[in-house]
Amino acid sequence: MKAMITTGIQKMEMKEALRPKPEPGQVLVKIEYCGICGSDVHFYKDGRIGDHILEDDIVLGHEVSGIVTELGENVTQLQVGDRVAMEPGIACGKCSFCKSGLYNLCPEMVFFADPPVSGALQEYVVHPADLCFKLPDNVSTMEGALVEPLSVGLHAAGMGDVKLGQSIIILGTGCIGLVTLLACKARGAAQIVVVDLYDKRLEFARKLGATHTINAKKDNVEDKIKEIFSGQGADVVFETAGSIVTIAQTPFLAKRGGTIVLVGQASESKVSYNFAEVMIKELTIKSVFRYRNSYPVAIAALSTKSIDVKQIVTHEFEFKDSKLAFDTVIKDAENVVKGVIRF
Amino acid sequence: MKAMITTGIQKMEMKEALRPKPEPGQVLVKIEYCGICGSDVHFYKDGRIGDHILEDDIVLGHEVSGIVTELGENVTQLQVGDRVAMEPGIACGKCSFCKSGLYNLCPEMVFFADPPVSGALQEYVVHPADLCFKLPDNVSTMEGALVEPLSVGLHAAGMGDVKLGQSIIILGTGCIGLVTLLACKARGAAQIVVVDLYDKRLEFARKLGATHTINAKKDNVEDKIKEIFSGQGADVVFETAGSIVTIAQTPFLAKRGGTIVLVGQASESKVSYNFAEVMIKELTIKSVFRYRNSYPVAIAALSTKSIDVKQIVTHEFEFKDSKLAFDTVIKDAENVVKGVIRF
Amino acid sequence: MKAMITTGIQKMEMKEALRPKPEPGQVLVKIEYCGICGSDVHFYKDGRIGDHILEDDIVLGHEVSGIVTELGENVTQLQVGDRVAMEPGIACGKCSFCKSGLYNLCPEMVFFADPPVSGALQEYVVHPADLCFKLPDNVSTMEGALVEPLSVGLHAAGMGDVKLGQSIIILGTGCIGLVTLLACKARGAAQIVVVDLYDKRLEFARKLGATHTINAKKDNVEDKIKEIFSGQGADVVFETAGSIVTIAQTPFLAKRGGTIVLVGQASESKVSYNFAEVMIKELTIKSVFRYRNSYPVAIAALSTKSIDVKQIVTHEFEFKDSKLAFDTVIKDAENVVKGVIRF
Amino acid sequence: MKAMITTGIQKMEMKEALRPKPEPGQVLVKIEYCGICGSDVHFYKDGRIGDHILEDDIVLGHEVSGIVTELGENVTQLQVGDRVAMEPGIACGKCSFCKSGLYNLCPEMVFFADPPVSGALQEYVVHPADLCFKLPDNVSTMEGALVEPLSVGLHAAGMGDVKLGQSIIILGTGCIGLVTLLACKARGAAQIVVVDLYDKRLEFARKLGATHTINAKKDNVEDKIKEIFSGQGADVVFETAGSIVTIAQTPFLAKRGGTIVLVGQASESKVSYNFAEVMIKELTIKSVFRYRNSYPVAIAALSTKSIDVKQIVTHEFEFKDSKLAFDTVIKDAENVVKGVIRF
Repeated sequence: MKAMITTGIQKMEMKEALRPKPEPGQVLVKIEYCGICGSDVHFYKDGRIGDHILEDDIVLGHEVSGIVTELGENVTQLQVGDRVAMEPGIACGKCSFCKSGLYNLCPEMVFFADPPVSGALQEYVVHPADLCFKLPDNVSTMEGALVEPLSVGLHAAGMGDVKLGQSIIILGTGCIGLVTLLACKARGAAQIVVVDLYDKRLEFARKLGATHTINAKKDNVEDKIKEIFSGQGADVVFETAGSIVTIAQTPFLAKRGGTIVLVGQASESKVSYNFAEVMIKELTIKSVFRYRNSYPVAIAALSTKSIDVKQIVTHEFEFKDSKLAFDTVIKDAENVVKGVIRF
Repeated sequence: MKAMITTGIQKMEMKEALRPKPEPGQVLVKIEYCGICGSDVHFYKDGRIGDHILEDDIVLGHEVSGIVTELGENVTQLQVGDRVAMEPGIACGKCSFCKSGLYNLCPEMVFFADPPVSGALQEYVVHPADLCFKLPDNVSTMEGALVEPLSVGLHAAGMGDVKLGQSIIILGTGCIGLVTLLACKARGAAQIVVVDLYDKRLEFARKLGATHTINAKKDNVEDKIKEIFSGQGADVVFETAGSIVTIAQTPFLAKRGGTIVLVGQASESKVSYNFAEVMIKELTIKSVFRYRNSYPVAIAALSTKSIDVKQIVTHEFEFKDSKLAFDTVIKDAENVVKGVIRF
Repeated sequence: MKAMITTGIQKMEMKEALRPKPEPGQVLVKIEYCGICGSDVHFYKDGRIGDHILEDDIVLGHEVSGIVTELGENVTQLQVGDRVAMEPGIACGKCSFCKSGLYNLCPEMVFFADPPVSGALQEYVVHPADLCFKLPDNVSTMEGALVEPLSVGLHAAGMGDVKLGQSIIILGTGCIGLVTLLACKARGAAQIVVVDLYDKRLEFARKLGATHTINAKKDNVEDKIKEIFSGQGADVVFETAGSIVTIAQTPFLAKRGGTIVLVGQASESKVSYNFAEVMIKELTIKSVFRYRNSYPVAIAALSTKSIDVKQIVTHEFEFKDSKLAFDTVIKDAENVVKGVIRF
Repeated sequence: MKAMITTGIQKMEMKEALRPKPEPGQVLVKIEYCGICGSDVHFYKDGRIGDHILEDDIVLGHEVSGIVTELGENVTQLQVGDRVAMEPGIACGKCSFCKSGLYNLCPEMVFFADPPVSGALQEYVVHPADLCFKLPDNVSTMEGALVEPLSVGLHAAGMGDVKLGQSIIILGTGCIGLVTLLACKARGAAQIVVVDLYDKRLEFARKLGATHTINAKKDNVEDKIKEIFSGQGADVVFETAGSIVTIAQTPFLAKRGGTIVLVGQASESKVSYNFAEVMIKELTIKSVFRYRNSYPVAIAALSTKSIDVKQIVTHEFEFKDSKLAFDTVIKDAENVVKGVIRF
């Protein structure tokens, strides 16, 4: 089989690899789609994310779907031919985090394309059957691959406990900002204000359901928010831009008793943050590390059309053109919302 | 001004009454729409609901909206001319229930058309300003009157903590069953199975968003549910039919760890209930007494089109024909989902 | 090694058995204490619990502690010589219940002494290392064996969300009633009313922290409760007696907005239950199936003396006298709160 | 009657004042005890707290208890002679915060000794009856006055959702740090680590229930915490010291998935805060603004001896010596935990 190997900074080449055999409890999946995530791009472009350094060749890719082609022993819930979305992280199942349902915090987590673990940008992958979620007939494998980024949005909206009729602010219109928007809308959020620096992106957000948009280059965000919410802030503020400027802005945008959800990672660890504003309003700040238990939710929402995640795909590439795909994402950041690779 | 007085069993006549003056904190509202609720009909038809007996003339009606025509002292949040939905229950604001946000359980509650308290089937009513919720331009006063029944559905869905992607069963397709359906859908429920005895009603439910319907006269409900959910039950089961048969059915329809929400009042107090099934599945049973804090949510959901509540109105009458309206609701129970009276 | 085999109804004999070897991830534990649970007694006495029939020889016992004597491969968190409390149920770790932290509802659960699975009334047992919780120096192995029944009380109090300062009613003073009392007290419950039919048991409950007791043979429970709580009911009502009489009583004892927790299994499945009372008060009914994630909590509470569970042990027997132990529990039901077997 | 008037910076004198008359719904209370809070001291010492400036004469004092001496109209729940703890903040009861139980966030709140509103350092005060909580016979009026600061600790512990068996860190041993400690202990927290700069204070904390103490002048807090919790952090970290150093420390002391509760107000608004640490651990940050619905809880906990709040009182003064009391609190900060004034 063929595997797309990242061999150095901005180097990627297709090589032959041995097709793996599923062990008990695993299945062999023929990959159909793999999305390109910001973290994949960081490893490809810089060979690192913060202290996390790529020291060897690696197969990137963790937003992935495919077709089950072989079953390991004791696998009963899947059949050969099933189309599946693959949850990329394998938790230990035995620590206190796993047992209490917080498996995303498992310290033993093994995750696709988290160096030195290999990812899924290759023709076949073996994976635990319980992490391969069967897609209903009306959900495509392209949508299946998008379940991974969508899961971040679902988890963010869940951590913010977004409720029907609430008012929402989303800072940032990258892929994660937009899937958060889709998740909030599907939970019944009423007013959804999206803030970014690019009109084109804000227009995209409107198409996806934003009720208001603010271009932070042109308008004062705090003033605009007060105008929209008659002097108050929003019930829930999502920070997805990952900039210290927008993180610092969050307490001024939430209403008394409101919630801030931090989703975007800034490149700097520290932010000068106004905790006096937090305390006078008795705000809650939540943060998001990946997601948990979201695949069945995402698939149900896609199948019943509560969420149409395909809309975020702006670029599609073939497997053999993976390097071109990564290079395009880097070069054309403003226009690429989500690029996917088709096998 | 004119008031529609219920003077005895199935007797109703329009009489002259004194237009009231708003006291401090109150507003005078010219009524525009009043919905006809099952409890109004019970008092009109039988002169009682259970032990709660109508002993004197009364003005019925508590699903109500109108236009503010006069402000009492100290009212600043409303203006003359504002179109408002009126929350019919006045809680004391001082007991432990009120202070902890459970004001629907306030033992001092004064509620429109809850004998001997008068209701709103009259041209003008005074009411506390904080219970008159201003409607946005894109929400009609007919919708404003429907906020009251919708609130029951919103509270039921809230008590069931219905989440995006969950599976739902609703027993009963009366007005309350249908507003519960609208609320569940707006919160992102995936599969929504509605059960009733009448095909016409089930068809109506499908139009409102039910993904599956079961006619309990024709099919075995438990078997059908197992078929739909691959042997499991639903995440949340709502009982809105108010029959001891359907209440008794609930634990068999919920999945392990699931929730049952009791919304419908049966005429009998006691039900022979299988608690062994409840315990083996570790079910939670919630119940619903009116609603709380739902008016702003309902209005936000109507304004942003998450919920289209107008759909449930099947019959509209003029104020002067109120008696006809009540008689029609009684006679034509199968066809009337919700009747409203226009002023 | 020796194993205590239940060979038929009220037949138990010690036999030689092969000492098992720990597989990877498992440890071999030399048993020190085994408590006698009501379910063990049912299987011994009647050969069945409801439809669950004992069809073959079995080793009973699932409330158990011991000393680690051998490590399987890949076990790093324990060492030979560690004293451990053993959680008796092995969940699959892979289903949606396990992944969301509700592993007690796992349909694949394998549980000590749940026929045909063997229990722990034998000198050595192998068990997954992650279910063997190391005891601190100041917690004895007798207390370690009591972590299992205590877990039921902790889970019940957790499901009731018992909070500091709340008022509690506990129906029944069996072992489970008393561990529920200990758990409620440790969470800071203020008034704790315990109801039973035997003064001796009620006195015992007072020693453990009950602030009020009611003998239901002598006093009308509802009247007494109203007297104690100035006309209101309690915040949380626990039913641990497992009788249809006490289950039926619960809605009349809870205050508006209160919670009922069903812990005791009645021999009859169905109860004639007053749901009108449930609905007028907007009550919540929770039920309890075993427990989850409670071992670390129990051990922390024992170690810091928030809970003194030893107090419930009224009878201690040696391993060789296991049959005597079971016979005593049956004969002297009124005086035995908890019997334990020492190895 | 006599009132203690703060007439300027560090000026306080007793003056004659008119005894007020209770209006409908109010009672007249003869004050018995008034605690001295840090905010009172700030206004006395500096004439301001941040931007909140004392512009006129004021009566300070808001931690207060007394005896009901006269009832306004419509007061039925209290009688002359009742001993009461007085909740100092009067919320509007009508805004969305009040109606949803978050009355501490009411924008119309009127609060004792929050300039220009007068406080309770005077012989008589009128106050809404529903904010005067009757003390049981076994709770003294000195304890009644301490319900106010204790409420902050209860609210903090509640916001942290401290559970039985959890591990806790409290930064700071001022009055608020210690009442938080009492609240955590009463909820069943297992390990409670208290951190401060003074050994005498840490010893005091040990007497009140701290299981470990760290003197941050002598030891590295992070290292010590890792030692105590075997490399992990605590379930809940309370910041009560109100210093930007300790606030900045919090994310490093919490375990994965843990909670930080901000209680202490720093004099600087902004803190350089490591949000990368927050996000990698998926921490939750809560903040605390006063308290809500805590008086009944506090009184129940005092009456049943779950909490012994008297222990925090180190200094007692007579009403006429109020100036001495304030001056002592300022001069002897290290030794005064809580000073109270007796009438």
